[in-house]
Amino acid sequence: MTRPIGFVGVGTMGKSMALNLVKRHYPVTVYDLNPEPVEELREFGAEPATTAQSCASNAEVVITMLPSSPHVEAAVLGADGVLDGMRPGTILIDMSTIDPLVTRSVSEKVARRGMRMLDAPVSGGAVGARDATLTIMVGGPTELFEECKPIFEAVGGNVVHCGEIGMGEVVKVVNNLIAGVSMAVVAEAFNIGVKAGADPKIMYDVVSKSSGSCWTLNHVLPYPGVLPESPADNDYAAGFMVDLMRKDLSLAMSAAKGLGAPAFLASVAHELFGVASNLGYGRRDMSAVKKALDALTAQG
Amino acid sequence: MTRPIGFVGVGTMGKSMALNLVKRHYPVTVYDLNPEPVEELREFGAEPATTAQSCASNAEVVITMLPSSPHVEAAVLGADGVLDGMRPGTILIDMSTIDPLVTRSVSEKVARRGMRMLDAPVSGGAVGARDATLTIMVGGPTELFEECKPIFEAVGGNVVHCGEIGMGEVVKVVNNLIAGVSMAVVAEAFNIGVKAGADPKIMYDVVSKSSGSCWTLNHVLPYPGVLPESPADNDYAAGFMVDLMRKDLSLAMSAAKGLGAPAFLASVAHELFGVASNLGYGRRDMSAVKKALDALTAQG
Amino acid sequence: MTRPIGFVGVGTMGKSMALNLVKRHYPVTVYDLNPEPVEELREFGAEPATTAQSCASNAEVVITMLPSSPHVEAAVLGADGVLDGMRPGTILIDMSTIDPLVTRSVSEKVARRGMRMLDAPVSGGAVGARDATLTIMVGGPTELFEECKPIFEAVGGNVVHCGEIGMGEVVKVVNNLIAGVSMAVVAEAFNIGVKAGADPKIMYDVVSKSSGSCWTLNHVLPYPGVLPESPADNDYAAGFMVDLMRKDLSLAMSAAKGLGAPAFLASVAHELFGVASNLGYGRRDMSAVKKALDALTAQG
Amino acid sequence: MTRPIGFVGVGTMGKSMALNLVKRHYPVTVYDLNPEPVEELREFGAEPATTAQSCASNAEVVITMLPSSPHVEAAVLGADGVLDGMRPGTILIDMSTIDPLVTRSVSEKVARRGMRMLDAPVSGGAVGARDATLTIMVGGPTELFEECKPIFEAVGGNVVHCGEIGMGEVVKVVNNLIAGVSMAVVAEAFNIGVKAGADPKIMYDVVSKSSGSCWTLNHVLPYPGVLPESPADNDYAAGFMVDLMRKDLSLAMSAAKGLGAPAFLASVAHELFGVASNLGYGRRDMSAVKKALDALTAQG
Repeated sequence: MTRPIGFVGVGTMGKSMALNLVKRHYPVTVYDLNPEPVEELREFGAEPATTAQSCASNAEVVITMLPSSPHVEAAVLGADGVLDGMRPGTILIDMSTIDPLVTRSVSEKVARRGMRMLDAPVSGGAVGARDATLTIMVGGPTELFEECKPIFEAVGGNVVHCGEIGMGEVVKVVNNLIAGVSMAVVAEAFNIGVKAGADPKIMYDVVSKSSGSCWTLNHVLPYPGVLPESPADNDYAAGFMVDLMRKDLSLAMSAAKGLGAPAFLASVAHELFGVASNLGYGRRDMSAVKKALDALTAQG
Repeated sequence: MTRPIGFVGVGTMGKSMALNLVKRHYPVTVYDLNPEPVEELREFGAEPATTAQSCASNAEVVITMLPSSPHVEAAVLGADGVLDGMRPGTILIDMSTIDPLVTRSVSEKVARRGMRMLDAPVSGGAVGARDATLTIMVGGPTELFEECKPIFEAVGGNVVHCGEIGMGEVVKVVNNLIAGVSMAVVAEAFNIGVKAGADPKIMYDVVSKSSGSCWTLNHVLPYPGVLPESPADNDYAAGFMVDLMRKDLSLAMSAAKGLGAPAFLASVAHELFGVASNLGYGRRDMSAVKKALDALTAQG
Repeated sequence: MTRPIGFVGVGTMGKSMALNLVKRHYPVTVYDLNPEPVEELREFGAEPATTAQSCASNAEVVITMLPSSPHVEAAVLGADGVLDGMRPGTILIDMSTIDPLVTRSVSEKVARRGMRMLDAPVSGGAVGARDATLTIMVGGPTELFEECKPIFEAVGGNVVHCGEIGMGEVVKVVNNLIAGVSMAVVAEAFNIGVKAGADPKIMYDVVSKSSGSCWTLNHVLPYPGVLPESPADNDYAAGFMVDLMRKDLSLAMSAAKGLGAPAFLASVAHELFGVASNLGYGRRDMSAVKKALDALTAQG
Repeated sequence: MTRPIGFVGVGTMGKSMALNLVKRHYPVTVYDLNPEPVEELREFGAEPATTAQSCASNAEVVITMLPSSPHVEAAVLGADGVLDGMRPGTILIDMSTIDPLVTRSVSEKVARRGMRMLDAPVSGGAVGARDATLTIMVGGPTELFEECKPIFEAVGGNVVHCGEIGMGEVVKVVNNLIAGVSMAVVAEAFNIGVKAGADPKIMYDVVSKSSGSCWTLNHVLPYPGVLPESPADNDYAAGFMVDLMRKDLSLAMSAAKGLGAPAFLASVAHELFGVASNLGYGRRDMSAVKKALDALTAQG
């Protein structure tokens, strides 16, 4: 059963995900403010739409994949928006990474209009989107999760039901906070080691088998010539950009504040990614946080 | 060829390591300021000594396993110390975790007296010491490393030559800085998630397969009921103690300062472990850093 | 020449300021979502209004004094808002403390409608508002500043022209960032001193005459019994509240991010005020940040 | 009554202080590892000594003014040291800025040898030392403080008895922690303001009369052209050096750790001064911490 899908937001991530749905024979209508990826997807068989509203009007499931909370609010709740196009009983899946509190307030408005909603942010980056191996963190009622599972399995490799509406976003924020700080500390620690005369390859060999092992070390080590293929070997081409990690750390800080929880490490790592961005590396891979460390270290 | 070994410092870690050498049929003489573990080891076949000097006097290889830089300086260079007992041509292996600059200055004095030296700090904790699965990070000349390799393999499972003298300590500091900060951020992030209503088990399931995965998450998650057997399930019994992690973060900060490198995350994590220690958890497992987060979070 | 004034937002600060204008014989119309202070001001001779729009409709100068950026946007630009009431050529003075970038965008909309605008945030707290001794930081064209100076002098004691539109907010943010961090470090440092056995009164006597002297030390020292009359002597009754300082540090962090500047100390102080707020002191004087330090310190 | 004084340590600060004693007709014997300032002081009438011990041997009061804890331990307790030269009943005044715990341990050894001791660190920098306007923070018994007061008044303008032995150092650490963090936040805040387009002179005018006012703002503002004469106007010539402030923040962190108190702001400011030092400004005035901010800020 491949139900008609409206897909709003086909940037780097969204385009690959929409394409994977087309390949699995879903009828997909796509919309984006930028006409280029819409046109590209048309060549693969997707139907173009000219507004978010019209993108939603023939769909049984509408997926949004947008950069931030205000974008989601505008595309879903705004004039010519998704909600104005959706019919009662249809389903909204927001796969954007946004503030869990915004998720909750949007979902209340969706429910009042008679539609159903899941939040389903993803992890795994451009490569995971291309290869349909994304981790997808889903929040919402169990039966709705089960109903939409085939769609998630068309775009991801690890689909997890995280609890009620908003919990997908919460788990995403938790994961990315850990990833961001571990990325920054790998850069901080290796910078110290290299200044002391140690070889990055040897440090990697040891740490990757010891208590300092972490995903960022093993996949985006910020030194070239160690991993078989890493952003550092390719002038820090993203990958997951410094500015996106900074945004996700901001989400974590904002969530922590709203909840009455501390976020000391998030705050300091946010500053370190900020320095990397200030120095011109905002659109490079998050491992370019190493450049911030370089600028703070004695030379010679 | 099992050469006679002198073992100075048989605390929690050292005792297990000395015992593993005895089990592999090395003739081992042991010394510690505390007579209890010396006596215990005697029952397993080790020879007790009453000073560091006498512990070293019949050995071809002397191993030191002590808590800090000043302890190593005192035991090796002080009155009745190891250097006064060793014969020219014999070997000192310092397996303590200390400041790499102290390692270098001790090694110069050792060389001037005609002995050879390796630094070889370990990672893997009480369990790794007991099961002889420690990671051992060795610094010093290649041929000396090869000569001592059988000894390392008797007490560890992953023996790595990290470069010249001091590089073992450097790699250890790098590893533990990453481990300490990742431990603290796992606690910070899960605290946010739990306050938001997420289930620790579900967060663990997702993060452990995503970009936030790290050793500390997978082995010492600070929430009970998730991992099969973790310190959190046992009232945070150590394991690797909060105060030891704090000490290792201090080493990292001190090394960074000496080298002209920044240590922002080390400094802030050092404060968080410090809070846990101030609140009475210094001798609990490092995952008790969660208690610091608890004290900083709104209740109810 | 006392021109008719509309005053939107008569909370703690605004009410005192509106009252000072009434006392100087300005005809003042007042509006607030909360009817109580409007009623109180009516007894002193102010004219009540039932919407922001009607509050503005007879005024030559409209003053807004509101808690945050969204409040200002809603009250000025929203339905029944100030802009719908103002006549061309009249003047809007926003005395709220908000993000300088929001100031700039509001001012552009004001100009397009043919009105003129100044930003004029204040410093000096409830006491300064009551006694008309506020410091007022004004941004906007010089001649408009001069034209409005008598109004500022009716409510403040130190009126400074800070440059073009938005610069009043910038200078306010700069001042409060310094004040917030100095408040937090006075608490951090005195906590260390007291734990070491030093007397707060003696520390105050020395530091207030030395390089650590600062406004927060001299006016809101977080220990009772030292200053003649401080919030600490009155169970930390505000004064300038912990949650307001946290908000101002947030503004500084947000401005820094937008400008590509670091904000390490702002971020960490923001966390410390956050801890105080989490522990229930959000509505106490900012010197209650001491309570955060207490919770992080070893007892006994 | 001008009693014979031995003065050990005549660097920048000590030389001026010794000279002020000579000018007040104290018989002063001086010693330093560096013969140059000893020779200079001889021309003004001081007696040179060739060891710390001989410098102390004719003195009734010995003053030490040295850079760090180990220097004091060596000069007082070491071979050819002060204690070996002093006669019972004479007085040691340590005016160095060191760890209060070291002060206490040295004082116990001094007492066991039958001498008396005060700790008396100073604040006020090179200018205060030259003009005899230093603030002097004295720890030790009241009657000993009174006995030595004329000596303190010969070199300082604000002499305060801070409590028992060690409390002088504690109060000094507290003061300098506040000074260091306030210096760093003045730089952080002004950097934000300048990036936003504000004028440093106007920011200074406002903040110096508002809640952000502090000694560092008013005396060592890190922007040139504002204060009549500041290090910033003289290429950041010290003044009180970046590396000394970093050392004092280290003392605060170390004291905090020993006492079980947090030091979050100290730790982060320590890193910022560290960055300034890494970038080559360690021997410039502490206001050169601005250079660290510059390196972390987006250009253009």
